[in-house]
Amino acid sequence: MITKKQKEEIIAKCLKYFKNAKIALTDEEKRNIEIADFGFGRINDFGIQLVTYINTERVCAKELLLFPGQICPEHRHPEINRELGKEETFRCRWGKIYLYVPGEPVKNPKGKIPEDKKNYLTVWHEIILNPGEQYTLDADTLHWFQAGSKGAIVSEFSTRSRDEADIWTDPEIKRIPEIEE
Amino acid sequence: MITKKQKEEIIAKCLKYFKNAKIALTDEEKRNIEIADFGFGRINDFGIQLVTYINTERVCAKELLLFPGQICPEHRHPEINRELGKEETFRCRWGKIYLYVPGEPVKNPKGKIPEDKKNYLTVWHEIILNPGEQYTLDADTLHWFQAGSKGAIVSEFSTRSRDEADIWTDPEIKRIPEIEE
Repeated sequence: MITKKQKEEIIAKCLKYFKNAKIALTDEEKRNIEIADFGFGRINDFGIQLVTYINTERVCAKELLLFPGQICPEHRHPEINRELGKEETFRCRWGKIYLYVPGEPVKNPKGKIPEDKKNYLTVWHEIILNPGEQYTLDADTLHWFQAGSKGAIVSEFSTRSRDEADIWTDPEIKRIPEIEE
Repeated sequence: MITKKQKEEIIAKCLKYFKNAKIALTDEEKRNIEIADFGFGRINDFGIQLVTYINTERVCAKELLLFPGQICPEHRHPEINRELGKEETFRCRWGKIYLYVPGEPVKNPKGKIPEDKKNYLTVWHEIILNPGEQYTLDADTLHWFQAGSKGAIVSEFSTRSRDEADIWTDPEIKRIPEIEE
């Protein structure tokens, strides 16, 4: 769980990153920055901060912010009610992101991951995204990613986002955030 | 028609705007910036510059750049083969954009338009978008837009883009660009 004080500190830090990258947000978006700690309470290892611009039945767009070394754990977006799962394009806007997908595993991965969670990161084909570079994931493709040493801001362009339906490799993950009221 | 020299000058100008707004592009994207003059050859009045990041069967994302006062003429995205027309969200990233949609007409519109084309701009409900502000258009909604006095950079998040199917109010418009080879 994230405390209210932690949340405030994280949001203040996010605003500095967005300002530095010249990404303008409304006051409402600033207040509503979503912090996902995946239920681990280890925000320096596993965490992602999100601004959802739009999420309709057909289209979703978000800005993802990861602090240095933060990991978004492995997951996929399955078919729901015979509708294809979420297709997503990650476009690096600032910093650097290491994205891992199915395929030939990299020999010396750039991502550094906590030993106790190694078993839950199973795909190791490495895609490195610098600013302006992007990668598109088909529906239902396993993936995880980690920010480089400066952190990363990534635009996500996708079909509808249904976070509650995502399938995580690590059974301990709780995606719906628990924040102290 | 746009001459090859004009095209080079316009692309060079685009790169300055994108750099100033800290929007990173790959070299390929820089080379492939699309210039739409709508067949008028009046690029200062009617024109838009586009970088298409992704355009799959399901999702499209673009960066739109308009120089000061440039207009994207009125059009809509109709249903095709029983598939709903394009839904799009315009998010202002830099500068200012005046977006016009169906609804109560504004009394004193901010947009300044050439007299000879007034008949082809029929919707006058005005939405003003500053950086961080956005607006979502349902499928098949008439719309046109004009950049403010500094120009504008706008992210477009949408379903699949099928430019060739767009319906323009002005019958003289040719959307497929004609550039001197």
